[in-house]
Amino acid sequence: MRTKLDCIPCIMNQALRAGRAALNVSGIEEREHTLRAIMNRVAMLIPGMDLSKTPPEVASEVYEIVSKLTGVKDPYERVKMNHIDKALEIYPKLKEIVQSSEDKLLMALKIAIIGNAIDLGSLADEIEVLEVFNELFRGKWMLDEEALKLFREVLESAEKVLYIADNAGETVFDRPLFELIVENGKKVKYAVRSYSIVNDATREDALRSGFPEEVIIETGSKYAGVLLEDCSQKFRRAFKNADLIIAKGQGNFETLSHERGPIFFLLKAKCRPVATALNVPIGSLVFKASPNFTRREVPMNTLS
Amino acid sequence: MRTKLDCIPCIMNQALRAGRAALNVSGIEEREHTLRAIMNRVAMLIPGMDLSKTPPEVASEVYEIVSKLTGVKDPYERVKMNHIDKALEIYPKLKEIVQSSEDKLLMALKIAIIGNAIDLGSLADEIEVLEVFNELFRGKWMLDEEALKLFREVLESAEKVLYIADNAGETVFDRPLFELIVENGKKVKYAVRSYSIVNDATREDALRSGFPEEVIIETGSKYAGVLLEDCSQKFRRAFKNADLIIAKGQGNFETLSHERGPIFFLLKAKCRPVATALNVPIGSLVFKASPNFTRREVPMNTLS
Repeated sequence: MRTKLDCIPCIMNQALRAGRAALNVSGIEEREHTLRAIMNRVAMLIPGMDLSKTPPEVASEVYEIVSKLTGVKDPYERVKMNHIDKALEIYPKLKEIVQSSEDKLLMALKIAIIGNAIDLGSLADEIEVLEVFNELFRGKWMLDEEALKLFREVLESAEKVLYIADNAGETVFDRPLFELIVENGKKVKYAVRSYSIVNDATREDALRSGFPEEVIIETGSKYAGVLLEDCSQKFRRAFKNADLIIAKGQGNFETLSHERGPIFFLLKAKCRPVATALNVPIGSLVFKASPNFTRREVPMNTLS
Repeated sequence: MRTKLDCIPCIMNQALRAGRAALNVSGIEEREHTLRAIMNRVAMLIPGMDLSKTPPEVASEVYEIVSKLTGVKDPYERVKMNHIDKALEIYPKLKEIVQSSEDKLLMALKIAIIGNAIDLGSLADEIEVLEVFNELFRGKWMLDEEALKLFREVLESAEKVLYIADNAGETVFDRPLFELIVENGKKVKYAVRSYSIVNDATREDALRSGFPEEVIIETGSKYAGVLLEDCSQKFRRAFKNADLIIAKGQGNFETLSHERGPIFFLLKAKCRPVATALNVPIGSLVFKASPNFTRREVPMNTLS
């Protein structure tokens, strides 16, 4: 997805929020002065911004400015840990709900989707993790029935599943679905960012959330999304070989919606450009097959 | 009120919205190109923005850019007429509610306050005027009881009242209060902007809303607020001589909150900086006496 004009004021808001979060941990006293300098630097980027790039690519420069001017590499480090810990408190409840559901897979998908509300990029300053849970009951659900049918079918025959994470804390909401797929005998990898960007999950965040070391794979990239050309060879291979790809959140949608593959998007549509691209109202909890969905071709040599 | 850092992304959003509204009427075909040019020009203003100025002063440059690059002087002209006409449809209902209220003045004040939701500066693209009416029942009311008592007292003894309008359409919601004060035998002037800015009410809008020609006075200024130093001598005199000043909306609050005088602010607090300055939650429907409230001194020569 290309960056839209509406993304420009949003990115400036992100710079301001990330700048404030960074200053909260940096100890710099001249807050207003530093924030103004951040805003000015971001403003000066605008005329040169290449809107044919995806929003995570454009936004990454902005987060670099915040890091450079505050000296803080990971403004949301503490916030991420706090979100994970809060989510872990309700993890037993999440598991219980799935276990007691008639349609366990559907419930696990829904829990994974509401978890995507824990996003500090496109959303508000503060998120109450416990309130996210209530979205399960009062959220605007936009689950594509055809896509759900297709998902069940693809999962049934899949051997390798790639689950691409989005935010820290949301990671805990991913676990019931991830674990259900593991219980079904599939080989599942949980992909996280290689570097701290916004509140996206890294290896440390996945571990803290309770994922075992051996299932975690990194994208190799610095972006808050999956730009395949910037990812490691190892990740690209996992992507290419997966029979089923679950991509969480806006950043992954923005960077993967044009890619061919067995991709399903699970997210909360938090801004107008993404909601428009998905053809849903803002705030919707979305399950969709990729517009460029293709089944993974079975290699010739495995055919009997 | 000084411009806050949060105002910067908001002003960029305003530029985008006003740009789109202008393009809807201009017939220019290269929409994206023109909008991008607007965003770039606004971005280049940011490093030089003087945040010690009020938000309406800072924003005015942005609206000038929109007009210059689209050739449209008044992007919201049609929208304003539509808002007024919609509001006129429910005007009889507004009057009836006031008439049948035990406390007519309080109800008229409340209706004037909900009308301030019709703001295209700090709010969304589109406003459903009929939905504004529902705020009367389900709005977040923050009416300062002390200020209400003071208002009744000041009104009681007032001879001259200055009612400073904000947005077109809201003007119709102002009428019940305005007319009640007239019925109480006061001399009331209804002040509007001299030039089209955002969707602020001008003389034409006040006339269309049903105000008689003779009560209308213009600020003489180009800003979406009241910067006394930029206003006409006639307006300044009216301001100085009024025993009671009713100032509607964020722009008038932002530009008048530091001025001394018998000023009361009636508004919906639509953004964080204004809500913070008023110490209320965002979205509150507010009635407050000015932090610099002073009664009008009675000139010596009128004392007997």
